[in-house]
Amino acid sequence: MHNRYFRHLFPLVLTQILVAAPGIAAPAPPAKLGERFDAAIDPAEMSAWMKDLVSAPNQVGSPHDAENARTLVTWFRSWGWDTHIEQFRVLYPTPVSEKLELITPGWFKARITEPAVTGDQAKSHGGELPAYVAYQGDGDVTAALMYVNYGTREDYDLLRRLGLSVKGKVVIARYGAGWRGLKAKLAAQHGAVGCIIYSDPQDDGYAVDDPYPKGPARPANAFQRGSVSDVTLYPGDPLTPGVASTENAARLNISDSPAILKIPVLPISYADAQHFLAALDGPVAPSGWQGALPITYHIGGGQARVHLAVKSHWGTATIHDVVAMMPGEKYPDQWILRGNHYDAWVFGASDPMSGQVALLAEAKAIGALAKQGWRPKRTIVYLSWDAEEPGLLGSTEWAEAHAAELKQKALAYVNSDTNGRGFLNAGGSPALQHLLNTVASGISDPETGVSVLERKRAQLELLGNGWDAGDDDRHLAALASNPARDIPLNPLGSGSDYTVFLDHLGTPVLHLGFGGEGDMGGVYHSAYDSWDYYNRFADPGFRYAPVLAKLAGHLVLRLANSHLPQKRYADFAVAVSEYIEQVKSLADERRRTAKTQTRMLAQNVYRLASDPRRIKADPVVLKPVPEFDFTPVETAVRRLKKSAKAFDAAVAARGPSLPDAVIAELFNITREAEQAVAPDTGLPGRPWYRNLIYAPGHLTGYSAKTLPGIREAIEDERWPDVDRYIQLTAAALDSCAARLDTGTRLIATSTVASAR
Amino acid sequence: MHNRYFRHLFPLVLTQILVAAPGIAAPAPPAKLGERFDAAIDPAEMSAWMKDLVSAPNQVGSPHDAENARTLVTWFRSWGWDTHIEQFRVLYPTPVSEKLELITPGWFKARITEPAVTGDQAKSHGGELPAYVAYQGDGDVTAALMYVNYGTREDYDLLRRLGLSVKGKVVIARYGAGWRGLKAKLAAQHGAVGCIIYSDPQDDGYAVDDPYPKGPARPANAFQRGSVSDVTLYPGDPLTPGVASTENAARLNISDSPAILKIPVLPISYADAQHFLAALDGPVAPSGWQGALPITYHIGGGQARVHLAVKSHWGTATIHDVVAMMPGEKYPDQWILRGNHYDAWVFGASDPMSGQVALLAEAKAIGALAKQGWRPKRTIVYLSWDAEEPGLLGSTEWAEAHAAELKQKALAYVNSDTNGRGFLNAGGSPALQHLLNTVASGISDPETGVSVLERKRAQLELLGNGWDAGDDDRHLAALASNPARDIPLNPLGSGSDYTVFLDHLGTPVLHLGFGGEGDMGGVYHSAYDSWDYYNRFADPGFRYAPVLAKLAGHLVLRLANSHLPQKRYADFAVAVSEYIEQVKSLADERRRTAKTQTRMLAQNVYRLASDPRRIKADPVVLKPVPEFDFTPVETAVRRLKKSAKAFDAAVAARGPSLPDAVIAELFNITREAEQAVAPDTGLPGRPWYRNLIYAPGHLTGYSAKTLPGIREAIEDERWPDVDRYIQLTAAALDSCAARLDTGTRLIATSTVASAR
Repeated sequence: MHNRYFRHLFPLVLTQILVAAPGIAAPAPPAKLGERFDAAIDPAEMSAWMKDLVSAPNQVGSPHDAENARTLVTWFRSWGWDTHIEQFRVLYPTPVSEKLELITPGWFKARITEPAVTGDQAKSHGGELPAYVAYQGDGDVTAALMYVNYGTREDYDLLRRLGLSVKGKVVIARYGAGWRGLKAKLAAQHGAVGCIIYSDPQDDGYAVDDPYPKGPARPANAFQRGSVSDVTLYPGDPLTPGVASTENAARLNISDSPAILKIPVLPISYADAQHFLAALDGPVAPSGWQGALPITYHIGGGQARVHLAVKSHWGTATIHDVVAMMPGEKYPDQWILRGNHYDAWVFGASDPMSGQVALLAEAKAIGALAKQGWRPKRTIVYLSWDAEEPGLLGSTEWAEAHAAELKQKALAYVNSDTNGRGFLNAGGSPALQHLLNTVASGISDPETGVSVLERKRAQLELLGNGWDAGDDDRHLAALASNPARDIPLNPLGSGSDYTVFLDHLGTPVLHLGFGGEGDMGGVYHSAYDSWDYYNRFADPGFRYAPVLAKLAGHLVLRLANSHLPQKRYADFAVAVSEYIEQVKSLADERRRTAKTQTRMLAQNVYRLASDPRRIKADPVVLKPVPEFDFTPVETAVRRLKKSAKAFDAAVAARGPSLPDAVIAELFNITREAEQAVAPDTGLPGRPWYRNLIYAPGHLTGYSAKTLPGIREAIEDERWPDVDRYIQLTAAALDSCAARLDTGTRLIATSTVASAR
Repeated sequence: MHNRYFRHLFPLVLTQILVAAPGIAAPAPPAKLGERFDAAIDPAEMSAWMKDLVSAPNQVGSPHDAENARTLVTWFRSWGWDTHIEQFRVLYPTPVSEKLELITPGWFKARITEPAVTGDQAKSHGGELPAYVAYQGDGDVTAALMYVNYGTREDYDLLRRLGLSVKGKVVIARYGAGWRGLKAKLAAQHGAVGCIIYSDPQDDGYAVDDPYPKGPARPANAFQRGSVSDVTLYPGDPLTPGVASTENAARLNISDSPAILKIPVLPISYADAQHFLAALDGPVAPSGWQGALPITYHIGGGQARVHLAVKSHWGTATIHDVVAMMPGEKYPDQWILRGNHYDAWVFGASDPMSGQVALLAEAKAIGALAKQGWRPKRTIVYLSWDAEEPGLLGSTEWAEAHAAELKQKALAYVNSDTNGRGFLNAGGSPALQHLLNTVASGISDPETGVSVLERKRAQLELLGNGWDAGDDDRHLAALASNPARDIPLNPLGSGSDYTVFLDHLGTPVLHLGFGGEGDMGGVYHSAYDSWDYYNRFADPGFRYAPVLAKLAGHLVLRLANSHLPQKRYADFAVAVSEYIEQVKSLADERRRTAKTQTRMLAQNVYRLASDPRRIKADPVVLKPVPEFDFTPVETAVRRLKKSAKAFDAAVAARGPSLPDAVIAELFNITREAEQAVAPDTGLPGRPWYRNLIYAPGHLTGYSAKTLPGIREAIEDERWPDVDRYIQLTAAALDSCAARLDTGTRLIATSTVASAR
């Protein structure tokens, strides 16, 4: 019992109950405020901003990127925001020279620039980054080439069964099925001396839709730039894990940074990839490995040799985060954060400017409200991040710089990134699920007229009733078909600027965007992600940028202005208990699989069931899976459910009548409860990742692993870690529940006090 | 009780028990006989036969086809078989002229002959049938072109949702996902005026393996010939359904034959198809419709127009079934039939000669046994069928000609067709399942040294433990992993010469072959299914043709020479009860689906979940599914299980001591029991198909529908037929059970008689 809470209590009067801002249980937003906000959202203006921002290549370090930072500051300030630029000095390699040649059979040289296409004005500028991936390892190698499909762990397992090894070879992998950085990392781990990554037309080219400029799919000569810095270890500057890249920060040597690759990597187009793939001999690639190029894909028998040389200038860059603040009137030390990056790989109309202009429209609309005299209860911080593309540097360094303050003040971070035509995609912390559902039910979908939530329900319902629906799909469809139930948020892995908040600081996040109908990913990270492309394919008529602005804006206003916490911890507890069921099932499934494999190996099933002309080895032997004791997390989540339910009920029932000082303390308590699931321990081998409920998979990159300490220990056969992380996770959940209990007691005591 | 059985009874002596051929419960084959048979199987000789048979094109009506018939007669006679040719006069159209041109945009003419390839000697002959499908409907049409994917019912449903119709258009469909004839039939039903069918490289071309001659996949200029006569209505001569095409048979007019298509159809190669597909405009084809040609597939918006003209000579052909008999010593009126066709589309090394040479080796080996003095107990009939390719004409007409005799005499028909390297595939009547398992466990796999049964078990086990295994796969894997359980036979649909026996006469069949490792279907029905191809890819070293000969030969010997019926009716009853569970689940599933659809339509889910720029219509509305009363079939199968178990047990326990006359009568009883499931009623709309347990799907063609009267009525929403066929099927099962009960009583009485 924390006695200090009682110092601020004072008697309530009845009118306070009647005029109190509605809590989450009575979710109507302040109607006039929302309407006034919406009225200020102007698609034409957003379109003009985008045109300005994408008018030249704006990758980190480019003149237009710096110019955009200044432009953003000017705009924020003109809208009434207290705005500054915060700079960091980060390691930022830039390409000096790149070469990829086929040496035998024949000779072919890959192009490292993307040609202009008819009808797109973007390409007249110059200054585009060539084919390049940031933080690859420079090198000059000549070696045999080998095709490794997507270059995943499963692909290497199959190569082994085929009796093949990439050791000493240059691998060529296709984009897709996981984050690019892992393709290069796994290649290096398996002994490859170089890595080529290309975009197969099956995945985002002509086999998906007409290539640009006729349609939205990837043109033959486009390539996907990106970063291969190992963000599954830690994002941000590879030389300053865990601390900000200030001028005088302690830095690792480049050669000591575990996030920087040790082999050269180059992305190429499918027009070029065809020359290399067609040159391969050796075994025919298995059916799942055949792409959409008009050739039979082979794995490589040594005939094809390539020369790959990449040389970078390993300099530093100054990055410019734009920070715009509007101080809270009542609770200035409670911060609601809203961010979207503004750096791109080339022009970046979709990625990131489609989200950036939504953020700008929100900021302008909130500024207009402020100019009319309105002030938020809490401090609103709008953040236009630089240097997301090379590895979430802008957001990570800023959050690391302000970690202590953020842990004291940040209540939520709302993120967006690429946005387009179609369906709502919302991920984040389950405690924010009900708020998201509530707000999304009030935002209209421009194509159908129903709310974006109702449209999302329809999408999930159709997916879950399809013939190929999985268990998760069916589960979501059942929820979606019941209007009384909320749609769960997607668990978040990594890939955008929410990462440091969710995974390192334990701040609840939302990640929002629309898509699925226009842009099929065909120009992702290419020079064709342009103004013309965006307006023709990603969101013709600029209809969904305003929708994102309204959704995110309403969320920010609700979070910044509500009387009570806009979170429902019971939803969090339910989500965690589902994750626990999943890891238990995973362990059971792995145990069965290992047992089955043992029997099938003993019976020689793998060889007998295979064509002896192709398969040379049995699969990797799975370790027997012990029975784990999940009791600690099960007990902890039962307690958490009870505590969360009690807390939510107390807030809903008695919250409206609580005095401001108690409310302020309640927010502190929930912040601490939320941060409790991200203790300092961190995950095995990557202590920067502290959240025990969510992390990017260390072998998936973008996609999430829930209960990562337990789940990945099962997947990686680290049995002692399973037990250890069951204990750690249980302790974190207990700590979370304890804080909520404190809150519940505070409310109970406060109410009794006020009833006197 | 049928008193006539007792007329033949006479007392047993103990020695008869001791020397009796073992029943199925003691399954060791007569070792010396099997060994002597195996010793006569000579791969070199089989190879020489194949070389001879495939030395020129041998489609129906060709000189070499007729020559092959004479050759076969000579060979059979030389091996001691009583051999004759049985002729039928069938309708057999032959191509007069074919033309397919792209009219706009540009101009292109499809080639109707296949070019020679390097390293294949076959093409020097001439006399090859051009691109052609038998029993298409002649026509000369110029119309817009539309791509319909595989041209299945589901594909037309999707077209409807996209707001598109094939009415008045020429469709282009790709081979795969069902029998070719249904593509043309559905096209015509939807109002198309012509149909082009091409082989997409995704399905059997370069996306599967290197094209021939480098590898086994389909070369760019190969096309798949075939028949589009509607064998789902009835196979055989389209003018003589149900009766033999003898000289004076009553014949339909061509225009009245429901089996003959009414629109022109032409198969083309993928090299040519690319020109037509690339010319299409309109909506981009959905993801599942994109093939492996290096273009974005469009459905067609009217820009592309084609001219399709096919003209045939609608003459008659004389077909020549080769019938070789070896009379049974003890039971000459009990026949064991063994067949494989010998007509091809061009050279047909794989299809059908790989199976034909196995059959020949068996015949020669059995002939050699006979020359050494051995005689079968029962009559063995070896059948080399003509005219399988145009629609199972040889087997169908012959069986229709001898229907009455076959119903009195035929105990089993063992079929094969294409054969190659790899795994055993065995389909047929479940009563033969245990015999097949027993024999297959004694045949050695040449690639692994284990029995072909053990290798099959391994294959099923691996499939059923894969991540993408379905319920059926898992069920089979569970059976396969238990060496004490038999592997079930695949249910048979149609596509080879077993059809008339299984589906029309109710004779138990086995259909046998090996494959899955060499030939990937890439030269199926093309001129490249040649001697060179076969020896390089389908079965290098002629290792699997002898395996098929041993497997089929041992089965024939067991069936022809066993003392007791080599069938286990309990296996049949178990299979039928599983099929009943399946159709019950199907009805439940359809009921749920229809309910869900009703709700989703009411909530506008289909539109809200779709891109409004693409989807123009809701799906076809499903009828509500009533609750069906499956009690009659459930009761019947329970009775059948009991009767079958009692009969099997009686045969096993007392059979070895029964006198020959009782045994003979037992065989009659089992024959009648088997035929009882194929009463004269027939299936709705296709009375030729009488078997109530198995039929080819009327919308799948090749693949089987079990309990077809019930199952297809559910699938087609013909609710009264569901009830009607529940009753009919129950009656058939009751009739089957009653015959088995008669057998059981006969055995019981006989034993008492002999014990006296």
